[in-house]
Amino acid sequence: MLKHIAELLAGWNNILVLCHASPDGDTLGSAAALVLGLKKLGKNAAMACGDEIPGTFDYFLKDVPRGMQNPERIVTVDVAGPNLLGTLQDAYRDRIDLAIDHHIGHTAFAGLDFVDAGSAANAEIMFRLLALLGVEIDKAIADCLYTALATDTGCFRYRNVTAETHRIAGELITLGADFGDINQRMFETKTRNQLAMEVLALSALEYYFEGKCAMIAVTQDMMRKAGIQQHELDAIVSKPRQIAGVYIGVTLKEKEEGGFKISVRTNKPANASEICKRLGGGGHQGAAGCTVSGDTETARSKILAACEAYMQENAF
Amino acid sequence: MLKHIAELLAGWNNILVLCHASPDGDTLGSAAALVLGLKKLGKNAAMACGDEIPGTFDYFLKDVPRGMQNPERIVTVDVAGPNLLGTLQDAYRDRIDLAIDHHIGHTAFAGLDFVDAGSAANAEIMFRLLALLGVEIDKAIADCLYTALATDTGCFRYRNVTAETHRIAGELITLGADFGDINQRMFETKTRNQLAMEVLALSALEYYFEGKCAMIAVTQDMMRKAGIQQHELDAIVSKPRQIAGVYIGVTLKEKEEGGFKISVRTNKPANASEICKRLGGGGHQGAAGCTVSGDTETARSKILAACEAYMQENAF
Repeated sequence: MLKHIAELLAGWNNILVLCHASPDGDTLGSAAALVLGLKKLGKNAAMACGDEIPGTFDYFLKDVPRGMQNPERIVTVDVAGPNLLGTLQDAYRDRIDLAIDHHIGHTAFAGLDFVDAGSAANAEIMFRLLALLGVEIDKAIADCLYTALATDTGCFRYRNVTAETHRIAGELITLGADFGDINQRMFETKTRNQLAMEVLALSALEYYFEGKCAMIAVTQDMMRKAGIQQHELDAIVSKPRQIAGVYIGVTLKEKEEGGFKISVRTNKPANASEICKRLGGGGHQGAAGCTVSGDTETARSKILAACEAYMQENAF
Repeated sequence: MLKHIAELLAGWNNILVLCHASPDGDTLGSAAALVLGLKKLGKNAAMACGDEIPGTFDYFLKDVPRGMQNPERIVTVDVAGPNLLGTLQDAYRDRIDLAIDHHIGHTAFAGLDFVDAGSAANAEIMFRLLALLGVEIDKAIADCLYTALATDTGCFRYRNVTAETHRIAGELITLGADFGDINQRMFETKTRNQLAMEVLALSALEYYFEGKCAMIAVTQDMMRKAGIQQHELDAIVSKPRQIAGVYIGVTLKEKEEGGFKISVRTNKPANASEICKRLGGGGHQGAAGCTVSGDTETARSKILAACEAYMQENAF
């Protein structure tokens, strides 16, 4: 089947590759690798993203063409549904020729949707696809794919990793990926403001229900004090769950317009999705979210009540 | 050469496998894997360590025999020199038959010293050795080796990783290693007290030399307040270097008996070893240490002076 995708691509030209909004390492690395690969085959190709791309990815994106005036073919990578194209939706959503994705909840929206949910990162599919296209993976492409693979697996820590993930990582290292520098950039660097936010947030951490639940409430005031934006809170969301004895880790993030976005992360057997459903949200077993209105006290009470009801029903 | 080691081991029985003092995942996982493998070959084998083994490793150590009355053969794993045997030195240092190690600075001290400094973890050597011994790696052994491999590479983040490291990790996953649970235990779990220590330490972080140096001073008083021991400070030592713009990350750890143990971690091109040498210490380019006497202010002044002199000489 992927062979068929390769054959299709081989016959196309002037190809624009789209990433999902709020771009991460996998969508950017996969798109960049595909564009660089197509260019090695003599084709005109470029990538595009609806949101601004964080500068942390410049090291592999700087030589990858962006945007195209009159693309003949549109391909999306790592995009689970058309709404995830963000601001690119209006221009492209009805004319996407091919979607390449690894999300189990992928909603078909393209002329052809290729989904391999067994791949930990979309980059695994790209690695195989480039081989089928006869593209020789050079250092630049290896850097793109390694970044994608490492960022989507928490540097090989998460449960989505397979033996194949490691096999490909090993090959990318052999092919010249600067894995040491990449890992340092992606996993070992934070700004002074991010660190200040971490200290503020962790200082405010509270335990509930005999330590089975840990909660952080991050207000707009705290973000202003630390000098960070809401999208930089990702690292903090994982912290409450990491504490020994905690089953339910909760992070409340105050929205600019008021109310709170709540992220719940759980350890087995607790189920984050079931907790968030009680407040109209949803997600996966280990990671879910919901939104509540009101001030900090109200938001805290609502999510604590949901946690308590869930824990009672499930005899925690 | 490793084939020769396998042949030797095949001819031995009643084998005691020694770990290094202050045991880590690699020495424990490698030793446990070797003992379990030798037992699968019908041999009597056990492991021993001079220091108490942290309970966090129980999940793979609980069925591995410890200690032996009259061992015929003594093997060390991941021990770079005889003094690293700690309290086991007196009993065994002059009768070690075989040392298996991956440290580039290994000092020969055994009847036969096998050193492969190209292996990121000692566990890589063990994986190959067990294959040469004809041991079928089961889930229990795979858990030992995966733990060793992951912990010695910062879960595949460090620069010591090779394509071979990933190849072996992939095989261990295929052989049943519970990598998801292992990674969560090793990399995503901290105690409430460790978290409290982290908050105290990061709140006390200071920047010097236009942010090129970041420093944390951890006093005995802070450790008492948080309820942790000095050996639990490992996670904190890596924090100052992770801040964007920082070349030299310094952590001062007050000793029970007074004075400070200083850990220096640097980003390229800064050299931690050259800084610590100025105070009588040493280590590697990226990680080094030294000891200074005096109170917090004195220790801080001494290491800051060493950093300043180093930075001036090297035009930072």
